[in-house]
Amino acid sequence: MRDAYHEELDSIGDGLVEMARLVGSAIGRATTALLDADLKLAESVIAADEKVDDLQRDLENRAITLLARQQPVATDLRIVVTSLRMSADLERCGDLARHVAKLARLRFPESAVPQDLHSTVLEMGHLAQRLVAKAAEVIITKDVDLALQLEQDDDEMDQFHRALFQHLLDDRWAHGIETAVDVTLCGRYYERYADHAVSVAKRVVYLVTGEHADELTAVPETDGAV
Amino acid sequence: MRDAYHEELDSIGDGLVEMARLVGSAIGRATTALLDADLKLAESVIAADEKVDDLQRDLENRAITLLARQQPVATDLRIVVTSLRMSADLERCGDLARHVAKLARLRFPESAVPQDLHSTVLEMGHLAQRLVAKAAEVIITKDVDLALQLEQDDDEMDQFHRALFQHLLDDRWAHGIETAVDVTLCGRYYERYADHAVSVAKRVVYLVTGEHADELTAVPETDGAV
Repeated sequence: MRDAYHEELDSIGDGLVEMARLVGSAIGRATTALLDADLKLAESVIAADEKVDDLQRDLENRAITLLARQQPVATDLRIVVTSLRMSADLERCGDLARHVAKLARLRFPESAVPQDLHSTVLEMGHLAQRLVAKAAEVIITKDVDLALQLEQDDDEMDQFHRALFQHLLDDRWAHGIETAVDVTLCGRYYERYADHAVSVAKRVVYLVTGEHADELTAVPETDGAV
Repeated sequence: MRDAYHEELDSIGDGLVEMARLVGSAIGRATTALLDADLKLAESVIAADEKVDDLQRDLENRAITLLARQQPVATDLRIVVTSLRMSADLERCGDLARHVAKLARLRFPESAVPQDLHSTVLEMGHLAQRLVAKAAEVIITKDVDLALQLEQDDDEMDQFHRALFQHLLDDRWAHGIETAVDVTLCGRYYERYADHAVSVAKRVVYLVTGEHADELTAVPETDGAV
C-alpha cells in the first residue's frame, strides 16, 4: 500500500510540473501574440488554457482520493494539502496568460501595447516564463536556495511594473486612455503571474523547512501602482 | 471522538462566517475611505486585514489537524478540503479591500475616483458587501437557491464594471491618465472581490449537490475590459 501511495504522490508532483510547463509556454506565447498582434497565436493560448484546467481538476481529484484512501499524516499530509494550493496557483497563472492573450485578440490587428513599451513587456513575459520554470525546478529538486532566488526575480518584475507605470504617467504619454487602460491591466496580469509563481516556490520551502510565513495563507503581492 | 469532530467542523464553519463578516466590513469601509478621501479610515482597513490573515492561518491549521486526527472520508473530507478553498477566497477578498484602501491612501487628500464616478463605485462597494454577506448566509444555511442568486448579483457587478470602462473610454473623459489607471485598477479589485464571493457560494453548492463545475478549480472570472 505504501508504495502505491508514494507512486501516487509522485504522480501528483509530475502533474504540477506539467502544469508549470504548460502555463510557462502559455505566457510566452501570449506575450508574443500581444506584441506581434498575432490573432491565431492568441486564440491558441486561449484554447489551450482548458488543458491546464483539466489537469488541475484531475490533480485535485487524485489528491482527495489519496487523502481518503491513504489517510496520510504529518509531512505526507502537508505535502498533499500544499499540492492542492500549488495547483491552484498554477491554474491561476494559466488564467492570467489567457487574459494577456485575450487582450491581444481584443485589439487585433493593432498591438494593445505601444511600440515604446514593447521591450519592457517582452522582458516581463520572459521573466514570467523564467519564474515558473524555476518554480517547476523547485518542485522537482526541493532546492530551497533556488526557491529564495525567485523572490529576487520577483523584485525585478516589480521594477518592470514600476517602469511601465512611470511611462504611463509621463506627461509625454501620447497613446490615449484606452491604451493606458490596456497597459495597466496587462502590467497587473504579469505581476500577479509572478506572484503566483513565487508562491509555488515558497510553499515548497515551507514543506522542506517547516517554516511557515505568510506564504501559506496568501499569494503575497507587491502593489505596483498602489 | 465523533462529537469532538463535528464540533471542530462547526467551528471551521464559524471561522469562515467570521472571515466573511470582516472582509464585508472591510470593503464597505474601504469604499467610504476611497470616495470620501478618508485617510484614517483607509489606514484602519489596511491594518485590519492582518486579522483576516490570522483567522485564515488559524482556520487552516485547524483543518489540517482535523484531517490528521480524524481522517475523514467521503463528504466530511470534501467539506474540510472545500473549507480550505473558501478560506483562501475570503482571504483574497480581504486583500482586495486592502488594495482599495491603499488607493484611497495613495491619493489622499484627493479622492482617487472622480466625482462623476462616485455613484457607480459606491454601488460596486455596496454590491460587493451584499455578495459576501450572502456568501456567509449560504455557508450557514447551505441554501442552494440563494447561492445561485449570487451569480445574478455578479452579473450586476459586471454591468457596473462595464459602465466604469465606458465612462473611462468616453471621449469626454477629462481626468487624465493617472485617474484612468486608478479607476481601471479599482474596477478590477471590485470585480475580483465579487468573483471570490461567488466562488465561496458555488463551493457550497458543490458540497450540497455534488455537482462539480469549474468552480472547484478556479475562481471564475468575467473579463470586464478584455
